[in-house]
Amino acid sequence: MEYRIEHDTMGEVKVPADKYWGAQTQRSRDNFKIGGEKNQMPIEITRAFAILKKSAAETNAELGVLSKEKAELIGKVCDEILEGKLDDQFPLVVWQTGSGTQSNMNSNEVIANRAHVLNGGSLSDDKKVIHPNDDVNKSQSSNDTFPTAMHIASYKMVVENTIPKVKNLRETLDKKSKSFESCVKIGRTHFMDATPLSLGQEFSGYVSQLDHALKALNNTLDHLSELALGGTAVGTGLNTPEGYDVLVAEKIAKYSGMPMRTAENKFEALAAHDAIVETHGALKQLAVSLMKIGNDIRMLCSGPRSGIGEIIIPENEPGSSIMPGKVNPTQCEALTMVCAQVIGNDVAISAGGMTGHFELNVFKPMMVFNLLNSARLLGDACESFNDNCAIGIEPNHEVIKEKLENSLMLVTALNTHIGYENAAKIAKKAHKEGTTLRKAAIELGLVTDEQFTDWVKPEDMIGSLKK
Amino acid sequence: MEYRIEHDTMGEVKVPADKYWGAQTQRSRDNFKIGGEKNQMPIEITRAFAILKKSAAETNAELGVLSKEKAELIGKVCDEILEGKLDDQFPLVVWQTGSGTQSNMNSNEVIANRAHVLNGGSLSDDKKVIHPNDDVNKSQSSNDTFPTAMHIASYKMVVENTIPKVKNLRETLDKKSKSFESCVKIGRTHFMDATPLSLGQEFSGYVSQLDHALKALNNTLDHLSELALGGTAVGTGLNTPEGYDVLVAEKIAKYSGMPMRTAENKFEALAAHDAIVETHGALKQLAVSLMKIGNDIRMLCSGPRSGIGEIIIPENEPGSSIMPGKVNPTQCEALTMVCAQVIGNDVAISAGGMTGHFELNVFKPMMVFNLLNSARLLGDACESFNDNCAIGIEPNHEVIKEKLENSLMLVTALNTHIGYENAAKIAKKAHKEGTTLRKAAIELGLVTDEQFTDWVKPEDMIGSLKK
Amino acid sequence: MEYRIEHDTMGEVKVPADKYWGAQTQRSRDNFKIGGEKNQMPIEITRAFAILKKSAAETNAELGVLSKEKAELIGKVCDEILEGKLDDQFPLVVWQTGSGTQSNMNSNEVIANRAHVLNGGSLSDDKKVIHPNDDVNKSQSSNDTFPTAMHIASYKMVVENTIPKVKNLRETLDKKSKSFESCVKIGRTHFMDATPLSLGQEFSGYVSQLDHALKALNNTLDHLSELALGGTAVGTGLNTPEGYDVLVAEKIAKYSGMPMRTAENKFEALAAHDAIVETHGALKQLAVSLMKIGNDIRMLCSGPRSGIGEIIIPENEPGSSIMPGKVNPTQCEALTMVCAQVIGNDVAISAGGMTGHFELNVFKPMMVFNLLNSARLLGDACESFNDNCAIGIEPNHEVIKEKLENSLMLVTALNTHIGYENAAKIAKKAHKEGTTLRKAAIELGLVTDEQFTDWVKPEDMIGSLKK
Amino acid sequence: MEYRIEHDTMGEVKVPADKYWGAQTQRSRDNFKIGGEKNQMPIEITRAFAILKKSAAETNAELGVLSKEKAELIGKVCDEILEGKLDDQFPLVVWQTGSGTQSNMNSNEVIANRAHVLNGGSLSDDKKVIHPNDDVNKSQSSNDTFPTAMHIASYKMVVENTIPKVKNLRETLDKKSKSFESCVKIGRTHFMDATPLSLGQEFSGYVSQLDHALKALNNTLDHLSELALGGTAVGTGLNTPEGYDVLVAEKIAKYSGMPMRTAENKFEALAAHDAIVETHGALKQLAVSLMKIGNDIRMLCSGPRSGIGEIIIPENEPGSSIMPGKVNPTQCEALTMVCAQVIGNDVAISAGGMTGHFELNVFKPMMVFNLLNSARLLGDACESFNDNCAIGIEPNHEVIKEKLENSLMLVTALNTHIGYENAAKIAKKAHKEGTTLRKAAIELGLVTDEQFTDWVKPEDMIGSLKK
Repeated sequence: MEYRIEHDTMGEVKVPADKYWGAQTQRSRDNFKIGGEKNQMPIEITRAFAILKKSAAETNAELGVLSKEKAELIGKVCDEILEGKLDDQFPLVVWQTGSGTQSNMNSNEVIANRAHVLNGGSLSDDKKVIHPNDDVNKSQSSNDTFPTAMHIASYKMVVENTIPKVKNLRETLDKKSKSFESCVKIGRTHFMDATPLSLGQEFSGYVSQLDHALKALNNTLDHLSELALGGTAVGTGLNTPEGYDVLVAEKIAKYSGMPMRTAENKFEALAAHDAIVETHGALKQLAVSLMKIGNDIRMLCSGPRSGIGEIIIPENEPGSSIMPGKVNPTQCEALTMVCAQVIGNDVAISAGGMTGHFELNVFKPMMVFNLLNSARLLGDACESFNDNCAIGIEPNHEVIKEKLENSLMLVTALNTHIGYENAAKIAKKAHKEGTTLRKAAIELGLVTDEQFTDWVKPEDMIGSLKK
Repeated sequence: MEYRIEHDTMGEVKVPADKYWGAQTQRSRDNFKIGGEKNQMPIEITRAFAILKKSAAETNAELGVLSKEKAELIGKVCDEILEGKLDDQFPLVVWQTGSGTQSNMNSNEVIANRAHVLNGGSLSDDKKVIHPNDDVNKSQSSNDTFPTAMHIASYKMVVENTIPKVKNLRETLDKKSKSFESCVKIGRTHFMDATPLSLGQEFSGYVSQLDHALKALNNTLDHLSELALGGTAVGTGLNTPEGYDVLVAEKIAKYSGMPMRTAENKFEALAAHDAIVETHGALKQLAVSLMKIGNDIRMLCSGPRSGIGEIIIPENEPGSSIMPGKVNPTQCEALTMVCAQVIGNDVAISAGGMTGHFELNVFKPMMVFNLLNSARLLGDACESFNDNCAIGIEPNHEVIKEKLENSLMLVTALNTHIGYENAAKIAKKAHKEGTTLRKAAIELGLVTDEQFTDWVKPEDMIGSLKK
Repeated sequence: MEYRIEHDTMGEVKVPADKYWGAQTQRSRDNFKIGGEKNQMPIEITRAFAILKKSAAETNAELGVLSKEKAELIGKVCDEILEGKLDDQFPLVVWQTGSGTQSNMNSNEVIANRAHVLNGGSLSDDKKVIHPNDDVNKSQSSNDTFPTAMHIASYKMVVENTIPKVKNLRETLDKKSKSFESCVKIGRTHFMDATPLSLGQEFSGYVSQLDHALKALNNTLDHLSELALGGTAVGTGLNTPEGYDVLVAEKIAKYSGMPMRTAENKFEALAAHDAIVETHGALKQLAVSLMKIGNDIRMLCSGPRSGIGEIIIPENEPGSSIMPGKVNPTQCEALTMVCAQVIGNDVAISAGGMTGHFELNVFKPMMVFNLLNSARLLGDACESFNDNCAIGIEPNHEVIKEKLENSLMLVTALNTHIGYENAAKIAKKAHKEGTTLRKAAIELGLVTDEQFTDWVKPEDMIGSLKK
Repeated sequence: MEYRIEHDTMGEVKVPADKYWGAQTQRSRDNFKIGGEKNQMPIEITRAFAILKKSAAETNAELGVLSKEKAELIGKVCDEILEGKLDDQFPLVVWQTGSGTQSNMNSNEVIANRAHVLNGGSLSDDKKVIHPNDDVNKSQSSNDTFPTAMHIASYKMVVENTIPKVKNLRETLDKKSKSFESCVKIGRTHFMDATPLSLGQEFSGYVSQLDHALKALNNTLDHLSELALGGTAVGTGLNTPEGYDVLVAEKIAKYSGMPMRTAENKFEALAAHDAIVETHGALKQLAVSLMKIGNDIRMLCSGPRSGIGEIIIPENEPGSSIMPGKVNPTQCEALTMVCAQVIGNDVAISAGGMTGHFELNVFKPMMVFNLLNSARLLGDACESFNDNCAIGIEPNHEVIKEKLENSLMLVTALNTHIGYENAAKIAKKAHKEGTTLRKAAIELGLVTDEQFTDWVKPEDMIGSLKK
């Protein structure tokens, strides 16, 4: 590989000749060989930095501390980054300095060097038209840029990936709930047979869980919309021009298309990441809900002969080559594995969030890495589960009917006709003899076949409650 | 001990003669010897059941399914429970059936038996005026009463204990922040010296954390105000009179003084406890914030000679008998231990919340036990920390001044006067020789003593940012 | 209440007249009102302190730094504590100073005052025969006594409560496994029907899990047997006589009946509690195992009609008054709730363990509180589950047989006789028509009734693998 | 892109023409679009499968159920996989079926197709010389191969990456401990000044933590060495030749170079992954230890002026361009971020481990993904921390000496010479006046300058305890 020499205050560093990054990025590559490629700083952070750097450059120009030409040049490179043209220029891993300084410098260096080239210069020029610190990082510090990028990237992932995909699943389950409204089935409490409900009612519980999870997630977005930018090194805003924090937040809102605003308190915004803790708390709640739903679905479709078997899920891949009907609930499995991961990620985020000291929390890259992972995985898994499983769920009417009719719980419907004690006699006989309630009732001479048909109507036992 | 014989459908049980509970409570005592006294069902649940049972009895009477006399008798016992007169009648532990059925029956039995005695009867009477199931539990099931009691008790603990005590601490810290506004000190990022800020600004970050935590906690109360009551066994409301769920929730709201309302979807309300997950998620966020604050305070007061030592905390107990000034930050320690516990409790709640099956989650007692513990511990710890530590925090002006003046970071103030390179020379000399910036600057002939005094003003470096 | 006045270096404190504790205990009561009675320091810690204080007094006497008379007097009080005679003298809560200093002082004060009374003195005497610090705490510091008490109490709880009760359950499950050896049933993978195994084999998996969990737990005891005592304030052993640490550990071993020994490195023993983290890690593994087992049992006994229903568990309390056979798996529920709690406690312990600073971890009381809770709850829950559920588990042979015979997976047994493709044809027909393999096979003319009986023998499909 | 058509029992699938994988791999790619590239099944699993498939083929050949030619052909492809030649043939993500079936089939398909090509055939041939199921998967099931691959890959990562790198760090810290043996410094408990110890003693605590963590990790390897292979679908070993399980484990041991052996109980080995829980529990303990160590180091080097500043760490990257001495503890930050992640991963693994049902745990890919991540990250972070920080740690003797001499705790050395009360007078005066003990002592006329020098020797206060 060919190299060029880059300099920083510590001396010379060899950088791959064809890369735009500079000395500080290279030092981080050399000093933090932890976890390999899969642990690279999420591309969403790089993109968020592009929005940030463009907004900062424009703001600096408007407030008179950066030339308009430089601001435009910086903006052009940021646009290239947003278009994905420079994705291979951001090689750093998550496990670097806890302030994310090195990724901030990676952005600064790539933007400065690429701007110089866009301006007609060469990477080997000694003097560049744009300086990574003095120009690209102007009115900024890693300490306020990185948390700003954290919020931009997290907000974006949540509103563009997580929420719409969860909503889609919610819509599918709601449609199922409505179409299963009249499908009466045995209920189960303590995993034991209980009084009946409709399959639609059962699914309405899932819809309600997702509604609440979405509401909880939305509740957290306000905190996440607060931006640290303008706080610079310790939150005081040292070296920022008057009005900078509000204006740069407006620009970020414009370029991101999201309602971001400057944080009222920049000290919190640097020193703590409770907004990340808060949003991930809601993602964790969503994971808890989806784990319940995923488990229920896999149990409801279990069988084909010796399980619950009340629903049928789509067959997406060969289950068993010899056993028809063995349709493994693989989408439930992927979904619930994701949920377990998110529940774990929540603890990682707590551990990081609680260990900040004084003016700076230095678990930033780890925290946003987990939030982005969780938000993406939950969105993707919901989409996969929706498209490849939920939309195809159908009742197995035969099984549902059989289990319902076999049920001893239906005896409660006879209470008002023949009294509690007689009803109990019927149930006990049916249980002891392994027969049906109908048969036991008739044999005991307590009801006729017609009466049984008239009186024992599960569909009358599912109540008039909404949903 | 003397006993009387109680019966249930399984036969006879010996119950202590002087206790109001009946056969099912006793069976639970005998069958669940887990954890001992400290693991008793929280008294807050017992009280919540009293509100619930009274409200249900009145509702049943109004809707014509229970006599007014019985309802009044039940209400009287519930009032006694709320007054704390029957606290020794609820001996069951948390680690019982996961639906809380046995605690529901404990309430039913105690209310029925005590009502009989209030009515002039005797515990040894064969026939009682009130029946635990037919009367006290009318229009109810453990499956909807226990989650209702969970929400009543949790809501109450959060709004009556947690929130006001956290708010108090927030007020104290806010007052401190304002009174420390002009106390300029060295900032610290990466635990390393950084540019200055005021002690007031540092504390404003804590205030902002608590403001956000309180907001997040309040956001969860809406979900927590939803009541399962009216869902009965599986959520369909089987065996409840028309209009029961709405009316009983209104009565609970009245007697609890809290804005409780019937859950729109009863199936979720029985099968999942995402509201508990949600509220505890906010408590966990609060714990993460308080852990940061508690750690900062203990570090800021460290010393007296060899630590940070920038603040002085009240001396509440002898630190060291021989060493004056060794004031251990014991309140920080209690507070942060509580935070660690809450962060752990959050995982217990997730583990329970995610493992519900079909129509009933059976981790109910464990989930509410943890929420009540966390909400109480956080409230109590904030109160203790507030009263015994926070209100007495004072700056150690001498130390703050000395550390600030010693700081090399102040050199940045010279940039605009003598240029970046000259400023760096001064800092390097001072660092190398272990001297002050002032001394190095004068020795290098770059500034005069007067100029240094004029130009290097930390109070001008803390910005104009709000707070 | 009557009070007497006690003094410490900070002045006067009012102490209940009839209590043996002194000024420092009282200050802690006044300053740490957190969590109430249920949060009292575990009595096991108090008892461990009694062993420790007696051992230290004897060691001090033998090494010539304490009079024999004083040592004997101290030992007498310690014996009283161990007999449970002074249980009401230890009122402090867990949420105190993180070094446990106040509980150490509680022990010192109670022992000194009680010794004075035993010696014929009065609590109101100005001068006491034994001094809490100079005598009872001689050659000790809170910093080394509290972690020593943590290890003694934890070791004891694990070996006396957890391990034997888990072993009992393991024995029961092993007996069940052996007695169910020939009970062939359908297997389930992905919760879907799979090839058969015996119920005994299924249970042998649980036995193997518990064997591994016990082994893992035993592996941690070596670390837990290391005692900090002799390290005093920071681990250097300042103010201890030569040979003290080894001798005092020998005495603790003698009086506790457990193989405790002095820690090779006292600095770790004060500054970190990795032994607690390690042992609780094994308890968490046990909880994960028991959660799996508890879930399986509750699913296996589900029904009576519409679930899996392959086993029958004891009926310990009325399930449903009208529905026979509704035996709720309440012991599984208590057990799995305990498991969820332990999994959460593990995170609390990690949060505390990771947040120690320099020479002292100050999450001591919280860490040991959680370990003792988990160890006790797991032991108690296993005992309860064993006695009230596991020992009574029986196969429901009828259901097992029916589900096995219905199974389509048995078709694989025909492969070698009629070829894979023909076998598949049979399975497909049976699945499509909802009939049995036998019926489908005969109808297709591929096998006779006799051949089917001869060839399809589930008991030949369960392999010869050692359990 | 060009495609070829592959078939499975469900029909046709389009597969990229140049890839060796087949229909089932492709279906998984199409059906599980979750998380993107960074979520690919770890390459270590692919390699483990290569060892497994080669071993199984050889065993099958030796036991007479597979031709020697086929076994050799399979082995050849496995060797290619182990050499990394086929890395781009394994495109599946972790979030697939929870049994890992699809990754097992990915291995089977790639091996079969590549073997066919190695044998002179073409990918477009209708009939292939090796069949993915009948040959490559012979005597196997996903249900026993995937957990076997989990154990092989995890064991390898732990012994080849984690343990040696942790040991290296342990050696470095041990060397530091020894070389800092005579460097006496102030101790800190409750973050407050305490009696002195040597810097070497302080570091010896870290060494002891790592020793215990390594021991705990080694304790778990025995469980991890157990292989599920031979259990096939449900643990019974259906369709395996006699002696298969023992022999195939021996071959795996040979080819992996690790002491793997067949699991005594195959039912546990499929249905539960307690070995993963166990090993990760030890990794979590290690993370807790490293978090403590990392935090201590970052605090010890804090400053350069206003922190603790007792050690100097290497300067690896520019801290502040203007402030010399601002050496950010970036390696501590990377290390502690990794620790937080591992503590979170532990909960994900618990959540997966506890949610297995009946004969198969279906959180396999998630569980091994987390274990491999943690084991790798901890190893890499220790190496990075060792090479770029620990080996360069040096005492800042000047600061250490100054802080020690300033300390008021040294007064305890005067007790035996001038009595406790006089010593306390000196300390109080020094504290009140902000002066040194020496100055206060002389001013009070209690000791002379010479006496102070003779009597107050911190080096005599650090004890004779080992280390």
